[in-house]
Amino acid sequence: MKYRMRLTVTSVVLFGWLFVWLFGMIGAGRAHAQGQQQRQPTPNDTLVSPEVHADGRVTFRIYAPRAGEVALNGDWISQGLGAGGSLTRDDRGVWSITVGPLPADFYSYTLVVDGVRTLDPKNAMIKQGVTSIDNMIFVPGEAAAYQDLRNVPHGEVRKVWYQSSTMGTQRRLHVYTPPDYDRSSAKYPVFYLLHGGGDEDSGWSTIGRAGFILDNLIAAGKAKPMIVVMPNGSLPRPPVVPGAPPNPAATAAFQERFVSELLKDVVPFVEKNFRVLTGSANRALAGLSMGGGQTMRTVATHPDRFGYVGVWSAGVSAAATADFEQRSEALLKNAEQANKTIRVFEVVCGDKDTLAFAGSKNLGEILKKHGVRHELQITAGAHTWMNWRQYLNAFAQKLFR
Amino acid sequence: MKYRMRLTVTSVVLFGWLFVWLFGMIGAGRAHAQGQQQRQPTPNDTLVSPEVHADGRVTFRIYAPRAGEVALNGDWISQGLGAGGSLTRDDRGVWSITVGPLPADFYSYTLVVDGVRTLDPKNAMIKQGVTSIDNMIFVPGEAAAYQDLRNVPHGEVRKVWYQSSTMGTQRRLHVYTPPDYDRSSAKYPVFYLLHGGGDEDSGWSTIGRAGFILDNLIAAGKAKPMIVVMPNGSLPRPPVVPGAPPNPAATAAFQERFVSELLKDVVPFVEKNFRVLTGSANRALAGLSMGGGQTMRTVATHPDRFGYVGVWSAGVSAAATADFEQRSEALLKNAEQANKTIRVFEVVCGDKDTLAFAGSKNLGEILKKHGVRHELQITAGAHTWMNWRQYLNAFAQKLFR
Repeated sequence: MKYRMRLTVTSVVLFGWLFVWLFGMIGAGRAHAQGQQQRQPTPNDTLVSPEVHADGRVTFRIYAPRAGEVALNGDWISQGLGAGGSLTRDDRGVWSITVGPLPADFYSYTLVVDGVRTLDPKNAMIKQGVTSIDNMIFVPGEAAAYQDLRNVPHGEVRKVWYQSSTMGTQRRLHVYTPPDYDRSSAKYPVFYLLHGGGDEDSGWSTIGRAGFILDNLIAAGKAKPMIVVMPNGSLPRPPVVPGAPPNPAATAAFQERFVSELLKDVVPFVEKNFRVLTGSANRALAGLSMGGGQTMRTVATHPDRFGYVGVWSAGVSAAATADFEQRSEALLKNAEQANKTIRVFEVVCGDKDTLAFAGSKNLGEILKKHGVRHELQITAGAHTWMNWRQYLNAFAQKLFR
Repeated sequence: MKYRMRLTVTSVVLFGWLFVWLFGMIGAGRAHAQGQQQRQPTPNDTLVSPEVHADGRVTFRIYAPRAGEVALNGDWISQGLGAGGSLTRDDRGVWSITVGPLPADFYSYTLVVDGVRTLDPKNAMIKQGVTSIDNMIFVPGEAAAYQDLRNVPHGEVRKVWYQSSTMGTQRRLHVYTPPDYDRSSAKYPVFYLLHGGGDEDSGWSTIGRAGFILDNLIAAGKAKPMIVVMPNGSLPRPPVVPGAPPNPAATAAFQERFVSELLKDVVPFVEKNFRVLTGSANRALAGLSMGGGQTMRTVATHPDRFGYVGVWSAGVSAAATADFEQRSEALLKNAEQANKTIRVFEVVCGDKDTLAFAGSKNLGEILKKHGVRHELQITAGAHTWMNWRQYLNAFAQKLFR
């Protein structure tokens, strides 16, 4: 389908001047993909989406004149902070919905246009993932200051590639280095921070705001300067097919594969290529959801490696308890030693988290039964990044002290 | 619009087992946005898009059962390498199109579903920009080896924030540091690399493959180890409104603002925070399209700063020549000195580049008229990233020798 440019004589003359002026003054102008310039004005030319109002309400709009149904999904919904749902069409073909007021925070959302998951064409802020790709939106305010871009010394977020012996391929990870890392000759402790299912190594530093959170904590003296390593935990895993029988062997292999990736590839790579302090007192490990499970699996089989452990929005179901206990003997049968090594061990979950709530509490029970010192925290909220960013903000302050 | 989960008893039992198994083994499972799990299977569950065939043909698919019209736009089209156009719907509601064979390279594309620009929901590889957001796809092969992820020593691509005095805000740039930068104590020359309109500082290291291109050149000994600084050239600029009268004052202010941003903010920040060699012999500047215009504006007003200059897919129109000459006297009236400072000065453009072709040639004429030594190269191809990646690959080999 080609866009036809219907030009009147006047438009040709004016466009010619515009083109000449643009071209002469600033080179060859925009690098447009072919066919994107529509000469017929439409509401899309001036459409704004999303629009954050002063009172925290947010309006979402999309120009979809031929659609029959447009809906909005946002992560504030499960958090209990506001609604989503159907957009309303006006007579120009612009669909819109206003939600909130939403508390100051960072949110993700998508639109669904006639059943097709559609990123908001007017919002360039996008969270990438393996399967989980959404638009992002920031509602500013004091409550979100901890994760905001502020005029403080900044660290750097780096994309780093390494050869993985576990996977036999090149793999990528993100690394946050604190302010002045390059100009210093000091060594730093390392916080290994894991994402959840559907995301990859960019998640924590985009939707997770990890760089900004650490910058602000370090600037305020609330966290020790540290390196934060964000690996890609999305290894090949058994497919989630509704109705398919469980495959415990495949799942166990998946988990072991990640432990190997982390301990045999990622940690040695980091310790070789960055100026780090080594030993358990200088290593923290935390993760959300799938990453929480990976954290638990790592600590349960290698309880001597990390002095600070955070299991966020993840746990162990009642039905899986016996199997978990059997595969976690390295930790559970050596609680006394673990309690000397692990200075902070937190299991944190939201009270509306239907996926993880029961399992988190059960994990707490298992750890208590075996005498592994830990803290179980139930917070407000659900299985959302709103919670995970707060968990990061709180946990980072406890590290390496 | 809520997704209803219609479960039969069997599904409940099986799903229960699956949930328990998943939950127990790997924590709380995937971090799904609310409502994404559809219990009714659809073709979307197993849909693959894009699919690269062994012969270089590529099939694109989208599940859009209620759409009336779906089209594909891709940058290979203007490059003359293949077609795009309308997708065909099958009776399940899956639309598809097969293009090519395409030569081994990296490409960008989007879908248009009933007039709504739609990212391919099945393709997580996305190029972000200010206005220019597309899916990306890699067609592997020998011709693309120079930009491929290979098992060679890698540099790092860093996201860096700085306070801009020109703009009065925090701004971001990307920096590529070469392999072993951190562990070395050496200083490196710096290549300042500018993107085009619609993009921002992430463009060159994503769709531009800059990190991989430099890794491969350095590994092969074809380029000197160097730092590559990729600033955000998308400053507030006069809007491109069809039919609006030209606003030369606003455009001049836009260009001056970027020159200030580059020379007063970015370069000093880099020279303070990275281990760099200074002086024109250790600084290169190149850019594409809008970035080519910014390069030309910088060199025309400050011809003593950069020893290597690349103006890619940009130029000066005939009508703008007099104004350009008047505002570029610092360069044009001091050609002899410029010719001593600038060791490589290239103006490069594709023969199918309808935006830049005439202006590039005219720019060459202006430089020649004033005795500024340069090389005008007309290559195959259009106003596309296919060309700009090749220009980068060639130019980087000429630097700092």
